[in-house]
Amino acid sequence: MEEKQEQSSTFSVLVENRFGVLARVAGLFSGRGYNIDSLAVSPTNDTRFSRMTIVTHGDEAILEQIEKQLNKLVEVVQVTTLSKNDFVARELMLIKVKATGHDRNEIIQLADVFKANVVNVLPDSLIVQVTGAQEKLEAFTELMKTFGIIELARTGRVALARNSGTTEDWKAEQK
Amino acid sequence: MEEKQEQSSTFSVLVENRFGVLARVAGLFSGRGYNIDSLAVSPTNDTRFSRMTIVTHGDEAILEQIEKQLNKLVEVVQVTTLSKNDFVARELMLIKVKATGHDRNEIIQLADVFKANVVNVLPDSLIVQVTGAQEKLEAFTELMKTFGIIELARTGRVALARNSGTTEDWKAEQK
Repeated sequence: MEEKQEQSSTFSVLVENRFGVLARVAGLFSGRGYNIDSLAVSPTNDTRFSRMTIVTHGDEAILEQIEKQLNKLVEVVQVTTLSKNDFVARELMLIKVKATGHDRNEIIQLADVFKANVVNVLPDSLIVQVTGAQEKLEAFTELMKTFGIIELARTGRVALARNSGTTEDWKAEQK
Repeated sequence: MEEKQEQSSTFSVLVENRFGVLARVAGLFSGRGYNIDSLAVSPTNDTRFSRMTIVTHGDEAILEQIEKQLNKLVEVVQVTTLSKNDFVARELMLIKVKATGHDRNEIIQLADVFKANVVNVLPDSLIVQVTGAQEKLEAFTELMKTFGIIELARTGRVALARNSGTTEDWKAEQK
């Protein structure tokens, strides 16, 4: 699995809100040995559907297989592989950091530079909410190591095509 | 499943980064008929572990069963049931809305009120990034219906205990 052509890929998958659909998608990945780097599942504005955003990696053949296999699942309405240049991707992180005395001010200033928000303050800790691309979250995490990370939770990536249609329309345009 | 005592619950689950762990957790929910309202899976600052934040609903007996069953999985390091008063919860949404002429200004002003960010502008559409509690995201979605929602993607909830320890310490304190 350590081939040179390994790349990261983001799939936006519209699924029917049927029972067990998550188990089937997760089973597809684990059964065939595909990796999941992050996964976000949430309702859409249409109660019949949920959207899964799956970040995975592999060589081109594997990524093609994943798309094919996802399309075969009956609950899957549409699979879109988002390419790097044409989508907006964001994630959110809550990070709890040790913070007393001067450290607290320094963390608040760093949060400010990252346009992050302090969402909880205690005498010895802060919780900071950071949103942005993965690299930004990782850069902030790296900085916080100096102060002491108590724990963190990240949402995983969500993404939308930049064009003015749906992610699905955008896919059609590429064909 | 429509009992009066149904309530929403958020589980923060620290899992080993082993292959197939997501499939086992998802299988546990679907196999036993438990609902998943949202799910976020992402790396932590410790490469050995991932954190899953699972929002589910059910009566008290079901929620207790879910916690017990999760704890039985070998890959599960720790399960914490976060109660409403003691945690910070956030999620992120990207929403693409039809926007031309005066509508565009109106949407930008509404985004401003919600402390949301416009992350993409086209002649006929906008993508807005909104972060906050579920209710805030739903209120913004409702407002955008007037203009025309093209599509949206939500991360699902992530949460951390407000105290200065880990979510796991906090659980121990409650005992």
